[in-house]
Amino acid sequence: MTDITRADGRTPDRLRPVTIERGWSRQAEGSALISFGNTRVLCTASFTNGVPRWMTGKGKGWVTAEYAMLPRSTNERMDRESVKGRIGGRTHEISRLIGRSLRAVVDMKALGENTIVIDCDVLQADGGTRTAAITGAYVALADALEWGRDHRFIGQKATPLIDSVSAVSVGIIDGAPMLDLAYVEDVRAETDMNVVVTGRGLFVEVQGTAEGAPFDRAELNSLLDLALAGTTDLAELQRAALASSELGIEG
Amino acid sequence: MTDITRADGRTPDRLRPVTIERGWSRQAEGSALISFGNTRVLCTASFTNGVPRWMTGKGKGWVTAEYAMLPRSTNERMDRESVKGRIGGRTHEISRLIGRSLRAVVDMKALGENTIVIDCDVLQADGGTRTAAITGAYVALADALEWGRDHRFIGQKATPLIDSVSAVSVGIIDGAPMLDLAYVEDVRAETDMNVVVTGRGLFVEVQGTAEGAPFDRAELNSLLDLALAGTTDLAELQRAALASSELGIEG
Amino acid sequence: MTDITRADGRTPDRLRPVTIERGWSRQAEGSALISFGNTRVLCTASFTNGVPRWMTGKGKGWVTAEYAMLPRSTNERMDRESVKGRIGGRTHEISRLIGRSLRAVVDMKALGENTIVIDCDVLQADGGTRTAAITGAYVALADALEWGRDHRFIGQKATPLIDSVSAVSVGIIDGAPMLDLAYVEDVRAETDMNVVVTGRGLFVEVQGTAEGAPFDRAELNSLLDLALAGTTDLAELQRAALASSELGIEG
Amino acid sequence: MTDITRADGRTPDRLRPVTIERGWSRQAEGSALISFGNTRVLCTASFTNGVPRWMTGKGKGWVTAEYAMLPRSTNERMDRESVKGRIGGRTHEISRLIGRSLRAVVDMKALGENTIVIDCDVLQADGGTRTAAITGAYVALADALEWGRDHRFIGQKATPLIDSVSAVSVGIIDGAPMLDLAYVEDVRAETDMNVVVTGRGLFVEVQGTAEGAPFDRAELNSLLDLALAGTTDLAELQRAALASSELGIEG
Amino acid sequence: MTDITRADGRTPDRLRPVTIERGWSRQAEGSALISFGNTRVLCTASFTNGVPRWMTGKGKGWVTAEYAMLPRSTNERMDRESVKGRIGGRTHEISRLIGRSLRAVVDMKALGENTIVIDCDVLQADGGTRTAAITGAYVALADALEWGRDHRFIGQKATPLIDSVSAVSVGIIDGAPMLDLAYVEDVRAETDMNVVVTGRGLFVEVQGTAEGAPFDRAELNSLLDLALAGTTDLAELQRAALASSELGIEG
Amino acid sequence: MTDITRADGRTPDRLRPVTIERGWSRQAEGSALISFGNTRVLCTASFTNGVPRWMTGKGKGWVTAEYAMLPRSTNERMDRESVKGRIGGRTHEISRLIGRSLRAVVDMKALGENTIVIDCDVLQADGGTRTAAITGAYVALADALEWGRDHRFIGQKATPLIDSVSAVSVGIIDGAPMLDLAYVEDVRAETDMNVVVTGRGLFVEVQGTAEGAPFDRAELNSLLDLALAGTTDLAELQRAALASSELGIEG
Repeated sequence: MTDITRADGRTPDRLRPVTIERGWSRQAEGSALISFGNTRVLCTASFTNGVPRWMTGKGKGWVTAEYAMLPRSTNERMDRESVKGRIGGRTHEISRLIGRSLRAVVDMKALGENTIVIDCDVLQADGGTRTAAITGAYVALADALEWGRDHRFIGQKATPLIDSVSAVSVGIIDGAPMLDLAYVEDVRAETDMNVVVTGRGLFVEVQGTAEGAPFDRAELNSLLDLALAGTTDLAELQRAALASSELGIEG
Repeated sequence: MTDITRADGRTPDRLRPVTIERGWSRQAEGSALISFGNTRVLCTASFTNGVPRWMTGKGKGWVTAEYAMLPRSTNERMDRESVKGRIGGRTHEISRLIGRSLRAVVDMKALGENTIVIDCDVLQADGGTRTAAITGAYVALADALEWGRDHRFIGQKATPLIDSVSAVSVGIIDGAPMLDLAYVEDVRAETDMNVVVTGRGLFVEVQGTAEGAPFDRAELNSLLDLALAGTTDLAELQRAALASSELGIEG
Repeated sequence: MTDITRADGRTPDRLRPVTIERGWSRQAEGSALISFGNTRVLCTASFTNGVPRWMTGKGKGWVTAEYAMLPRSTNERMDRESVKGRIGGRTHEISRLIGRSLRAVVDMKALGENTIVIDCDVLQADGGTRTAAITGAYVALADALEWGRDHRFIGQKATPLIDSVSAVSVGIIDGAPMLDLAYVEDVRAETDMNVVVTGRGLFVEVQGTAEGAPFDRAELNSLLDLALAGTTDLAELQRAALASSELGIEG
Repeated sequence: MTDITRADGRTPDRLRPVTIERGWSRQAEGSALISFGNTRVLCTASFTNGVPRWMTGKGKGWVTAEYAMLPRSTNERMDRESVKGRIGGRTHEISRLIGRSLRAVVDMKALGENTIVIDCDVLQADGGTRTAAITGAYVALADALEWGRDHRFIGQKATPLIDSVSAVSVGIIDGAPMLDLAYVEDVRAETDMNVVVTGRGLFVEVQGTAEGAPFDRAELNSLLDLALAGTTDLAELQRAALASSELGIEG
Repeated sequence: MTDITRADGRTPDRLRPVTIERGWSRQAEGSALISFGNTRVLCTASFTNGVPRWMTGKGKGWVTAEYAMLPRSTNERMDRESVKGRIGGRTHEISRLIGRSLRAVVDMKALGENTIVIDCDVLQADGGTRTAAITGAYVALADALEWGRDHRFIGQKATPLIDSVSAVSVGIIDGAPMLDLAYVEDVRAETDMNVVVTGRGLFVEVQGTAEGAPFDRAELNSLLDLALAGTTDLAELQRAALASSELGIEG
Repeated sequence: MTDITRADGRTPDRLRPVTIERGWSRQAEGSALISFGNTRVLCTASFTNGVPRWMTGKGKGWVTAEYAMLPRSTNERMDRESVKGRIGGRTHEISRLIGRSLRAVVDMKALGENTIVIDCDVLQADGGTRTAAITGAYVALADALEWGRDHRFIGQKATPLIDSVSAVSVGIIDGAPMLDLAYVEDVRAETDMNVVVTGRGLFVEVQGTAEGAPFDRAELNSLLDLALAGTTDLAELQRAALASSELGIEG
């Protein structure tokens, strides 16, 4: 696998340089500006005491997420969804994926009747925006939970975070499995898979799509191998970012 | 695995009774009313000569799909999306999934500059609506392609259908992997996976989600085993339905 | 009047074959799949205990209806209203007509503070969809009211149904009045009238429109004669469907 | 019938005072501010050379109408439909009725490839807004057609207006049929009918609705009698308004 | 400045003829049909006891405004915003301007927990619609407040109106400052300014825009001089309209 | 004026620290991340060869702008306008202001048939977002025009930029005029004015609003004095940013 060199010089099994600027926003209870190479996503976590009316009185919290792209985050300017008056299917799909991924590592009872809304806004897009968003959102979420504990909205002994979670894309290009696809790679991939994995190495989401030719079981297996290795590295970078007492941790 | 009996008496590795009423609609170029147990989906394929303007002149066709549920297809009546003025994220997600699944088995060059729109309307929902929709949509698509050939919009020697495609859900309930979940099973599943497979046994989509606890590699593997067995059976039922010269083929 | 033969061989004063599959849906409290020839409408009645907030405390119930067509119920595929983000004027008009027609035979006090929502979804359209919808909706409504009584939401002595109600279209084609127009007739009609009549033979709605030439009083009178004869037959078919203890009553 | 006196002192068979201020707008090619008692509707007719693209090349014109109410035309302020982002069913229904009524008296071939859009905006509402709108719209339409002829968009020998058209409401209150209902009467009516009639006395639309109790054939007949008498008077007032060379004709 | 004569014969420092028909609407608690030359705006004020939920319990009232144009108030017919399903930026901007202008002269505590909604509907547009709207809206507002006092929703000693408010446009055309621009002037103006001034001569809003060339401080000053003179005259006309006990006061 | 010290220690006539990171985006033809204190706005300029259809063939270009705020740019999270399905009045108003301000310094003939869309997305809001947006947008615009010239879409001798443009807010707080209001100041201001000024010191927009008490001419004059001094400084910072050959110029 190692003879193939990619456009940016990486070997097939390498992540792009990952940067996590924790606490980027002065306003949000938790935030991170994350980069996977040239992909840059601003993730904020907004903590609110209380839950939507339909959940009240169950002693449980709620975590949800919204994803969006700035109109010129892409190479060609896209129309704003607010101007079109509708949210597109892709946006919906990714927002839901991020929300599910984060909820998988939160104990809603331990969170108590509090709501966390995660916003992932893509400032610059170069492939892997959803996986960068999930990885950065986890850091913002962790800080917002800490804020909630500090402000006594969450019990001092409660541990709402069960595990960490990160995500990476993998794909098959010219028959070769590759990790963390940049945009130029993504458009050429025959198969494209996004894998969301907890810090303990368990799967939260496996979403594989044959863009070109259908794939067989062996290919699926090598993609999963790559993804597990990549998310192990991302989990380590998340840990480092959260351990640091300062902003701008470099991966 | 075989000692577990399900609410409807099935063993974990059995499909529900599957029925395909081919040619249900008098209007559409291709159609099928498919049942997976109590789940009933009306699939129609509308053939139009020509493609959207942005595709004109490339010598290629286009296949797209829309999914929707009747308001009282479910146990509690849902508001209509037309009344709400917006299509929800789940609807978007499933429409896109059906479209991608069908495009994976169509050779767009062989289709020529023709458009096929597949509508999958759920008349009654009892789990697995998206997988029933994909499986029925393939039958409608095949008939619409035949119609296009009969009407000389598709070349007589062209073979736009590369393969067949069907889909099934699998999930883990109380630790046990199960095939083709009914609604009561779906809501209890810890992990829920939809798998789209071609007639040759290759994967088109693998979408696994940990609804409850994250899953490990071994669990993923047993789910894939079940899904491949199920789609092999579905492919056979599709073949039978299309081979018949009459409507109302029973699976 | 009897020498004129129509495309389908009927005499001018004959209904198309009418079929009422009572209880088609497993989910709804009342339902009927009704056919007027090739027009097929799925009618479901959803019973909810309670009324909208603005009606609470008045001791009265509410009955409302929504009508829609599947995109490929027609000969040319129509865009979905959910995709367009708006409901068209025709849809609104027919939904309101169905609701008014049903409310005309319900005693809202006897219904008590309960709500019934009728959904009429056209699966296949060949003229007369609104009149088939009203006729089928009455059967679904009657069963939902029975369900409400069985579940003690409606008093055991209350008689919320005052009368039955059915509807039929009539029109003038080449100067001749005709009953129950099929689509090919409808587009040619100079005058088109939808008449909603109770089981006792009283008018609930008379909606006559000159599509081509305006009509005189004599023409109006012969159209009403035809309509009253047609609705008398439909009322009989409704009675038979409701009297039967089984599904799939044939008219 | 004549012993009953109404809130405003009218006998059951009398119209309210009707005023037609022809040419109220300086901008529109035709216009009329019409009053039926306290109901006041501003009708403008906008003439455009050319037709919508889907009609081009057929040598025919098009006439359409839009109806709306100012938010405080009613006793309680209503939200604007522009603010709600949707047009309600009632608005749609009335706009379509006005359009059909006007088209019934226009020879589209004689109009040639020209479009006339009629706007009927209710400035003050006191019952009968749709019938006042149709009656006033006809005057605006006639002037716009004259304008089109003067500007050579319509042939000098063409007679696009086949007939005149007006409309009136009738209803049954406490068992008595009455003409031209004011709002306080309208809300009490058991049956409410809007009748659109040409200058020659032929029906264009008959829309009768049982708001309270269903009605029988004898009641229907007396309502039609009243309506025909009322529209005869309205046709006369339209003629007078159009004959005058000045604005502000009083009926 | 006085040698320049305008299309309508005015000197640069003259208003167009201004008419205020106070109490035009029978329905609204306050109303005025105001004309600035051919610009005609119907202003109604709707008084409601109570405030929106988010303001309850603060002992303060609320005043808000909505502006709209009839589709054929302009020379070319515009599409309705209700039909487009969205309110345009210009409409929003003017609605907000009118609301702010009126609130500047209302003491919300003296108003108490009451809401006034002002609707300004342009029946005919010939430049200066927003300034006519503000000027007429003040008259409607004053009458609605009087109505509130008469009906004991406002304390008998409370004086919710702190001052009067009116507005006028000014602009620079061919280098010359001019007052109250008609439409033909407005489109030629290099700079266009709307100035809202209280009866005491204080500014509420100054909105100057360089449509063509940017403007210097001296130009700004002469525009403000003109505007202050114009609003002094408008304040006098408002006083006269409100002093009169009859409708249709002519300025 | 100088004894008053503000929350952040500034004198009334001082700007907050201003930073312009020119070329922040890798994708856009021109971009700047601008900060006015804690207010941070990402401005991108998208250059497209060609103009909207309605402008084609006039030999002129077009410049337009869109403004938006990220949901958690503010202290309390706001709902996304894309989720609400509508753009609010304030957003529309500011987008239009930015567009007009930029067009005032562009010679559309010199630009030729090219379109520039400016996007101003507020990443963090602390007062003055619209003035920061205009000031940053000018830098992005200048770079996009340079790109257009480099790519031969703009003539080599054409000078589409007539002047520079910047903007600042001023307001009266506790009777004292102040420059460049931070959010905590903005909410307390009696009068709030946004002033857009060209590099040569001419006014493009003057938008003054009495939020609390109306203001007199003397107050207006001192606000304009402050604004002109502030925009002189901003113009200098813009020049420095554009003169630099590197990114991240600090003001």
